[in-house]
Amino acid sequence: MLEQSYSDAIWHRINQKTKPLGALGQLESVAHQLALIASHNRGDVATQLSLKKPSVWVFAGDHGIAQEGVSIAPSAVTRQMVLNFLNGGAAINCFARVNDIELNVVDTGIIEPIDNPHPNLIVQRLGAGTDNFSLQPAMSREQVNQGIEYGRQMIVDAVKNGSDMVMFGEMGIGNTSSASAIFAALSLDNVTECVGRGTGITPEQLEKKIEVVAKGVVRCQGQPVLDVLAEVGGFEIVQMVGAFLGAHQSRVPVVVDGFITSVAAYCATLIAPDCREYMIFAHQSQEQGHKRVLELMNAEPLLDLSLRLGEGTGAALAVSLIKGAIEFYNHMASFEDAGVTV
Amino acid sequence: MLEQSYSDAIWHRINQKTKPLGALGQLESVAHQLALIASHNRGDVATQLSLKKPSVWVFAGDHGIAQEGVSIAPSAVTRQMVLNFLNGGAAINCFARVNDIELNVVDTGIIEPIDNPHPNLIVQRLGAGTDNFSLQPAMSREQVNQGIEYGRQMIVDAVKNGSDMVMFGEMGIGNTSSASAIFAALSLDNVTECVGRGTGITPEQLEKKIEVVAKGVVRCQGQPVLDVLAEVGGFEIVQMVGAFLGAHQSRVPVVVDGFITSVAAYCATLIAPDCREYMIFAHQSQEQGHKRVLELMNAEPLLDLSLRLGEGTGAALAVSLIKGAIEFYNHMASFEDAGVTV
Repeated sequence: MLEQSYSDAIWHRINQKTKPLGALGQLESVAHQLALIASHNRGDVATQLSLKKPSVWVFAGDHGIAQEGVSIAPSAVTRQMVLNFLNGGAAINCFARVNDIELNVVDTGIIEPIDNPHPNLIVQRLGAGTDNFSLQPAMSREQVNQGIEYGRQMIVDAVKNGSDMVMFGEMGIGNTSSASAIFAALSLDNVTECVGRGTGITPEQLEKKIEVVAKGVVRCQGQPVLDVLAEVGGFEIVQMVGAFLGAHQSRVPVVVDGFITSVAAYCATLIAPDCREYMIFAHQSQEQGHKRVLELMNAEPLLDLSLRLGEGTGAALAVSLIKGAIEFYNHMASFEDAGVTV
Repeated sequence: MLEQSYSDAIWHRINQKTKPLGALGQLESVAHQLALIASHNRGDVATQLSLKKPSVWVFAGDHGIAQEGVSIAPSAVTRQMVLNFLNGGAAINCFARVNDIELNVVDTGIIEPIDNPHPNLIVQRLGAGTDNFSLQPAMSREQVNQGIEYGRQMIVDAVKNGSDMVMFGEMGIGNTSSASAIFAALSLDNVTECVGRGTGITPEQLEKKIEVVAKGVVRCQGQPVLDVLAEVGGFEIVQMVGAFLGAHQSRVPVVVDGFITSVAAYCATLIAPDCREYMIFAHQSQEQGHKRVLELMNAEPLLDLSLRLGEGTGAALAVSLIKGAIEFYNHMASFEDAGVTV
């Protein structure tokens, strides 16, 4: 757990800035959280926060459940989008560029691997897509363990190499079905409330999606998180769970993206509750179920732009607000400095 | 009015990007609006948007109504904060720095002028603070006209000098009282619903504030906007009204900040309704009344961070999201470019 004894001194510093008490709203909470992490890490109240190398990691994996027609696009699109990420053409590339965020893509198990190496592609394949979880377990417990270890170690290494804020995105046709199933199994919520329209399916497809998700959930509702992940998880999701654990282990703040990433974050908090202290929640997405996951983590997201894309797009956009929070914490004048009457 | 014939081609371009239809939510609306403005200005569908020199203009002015004890701070703080802006120590300085926004401060009539010239200080004084509008008109119709002309000309000149997106902030102890009075007079809404806690007054001060605001409103409710501004306006507010008109005249997009700025924006739309087409609404502030002003302008703000500071802080923060919208419009791959199956 983060050392709480620095908290009052940090609030005092924020409250002495030349503004009415609390007038910077959620940015004050973000500044406080970052300062608490930094103070914990240095063992003294941090008066300056630093952000030199934020990085986004887009985890891509395919899903057997996609065979059930639960998505607007075929599985081939997962690989096509990986190439799009590597070529700099996707939405996450745009938002990473604008906000000076390093971007990496992780092949956690797309159906057909990428032929050529690429400096921003990390290959940590757990298979050629998961099995269809409406019929059988999506993966083995060994694959779950391996995936978590892959994700954890990758982020620990990244922090050793200078990353000081990380965020995770995902790409995987069918993965809202998997995330919905995981969340329904863990939260014990009704499947219907956990399943949404993903990237835009029809009402008929939604009905079908609820039906196939329920087939997986019935096998594992109420079971421990690692078993749930094996039954209905996704390769990119288990690696993201590991990545959240890695961020915690390395004590760096992590910006949480949309529904699927938030479900992975929730899984990580079930494994190591203190993970939560390092999480900044970027946005409320359009996906049904996201609001509820955020509630369970007591999260107040920064943005609500009606995004429903994943890829880490919401997290990348939120980084600019976090930079604002850091800048005011570091450089905004106090009443005393500025000679402003309190 | 903006030429609407480019609209479909712009939506087509957005819809061909490698993302599900509508998946970038409000950023798509922003990109469309900016592209419509750019297309109108060039007389052809704009396939590239440009943002080279965004600028924020902080209008400072004092208010006679402050003598009634309607604020948490004395009028002297207006001038102290102007010095803070000029020294780079305020919240708006931090957010302008982080987002590469040029910052200028306009003395529209603070009580005691700033002694020395400063490269970022523009002096356009209409007086040494307005008169106390609970007892008499805040200013003359001549001052209103002069103020509007000052603000309009300043922005027209700024655009000639390269500004290609402008935003306005304000500083003036007592100015939520003035903005509330203007809005109640123009909207015909009940004064109680238009008056909020400003930067954080007590319930007793709020009662007093409603009472003094009502004294001004009763003299001008339902009157034309220029008369209302003379009765209960502020020097910084009338110059912002002119600045919105100047942005429209120069055909540049303008990012609208919080309650007070939004009231000025609303006044400008009453003078020249087409102004509205150039406005991007940055955020929903905590101030009561802001939601209603935004509704009347049919505005969907980008952020809702519980800010209640003014200065242009919300607008400056929103610029990073606008940069994201521009980048995806310019550089995100289409399905065809990226070879992604539709």
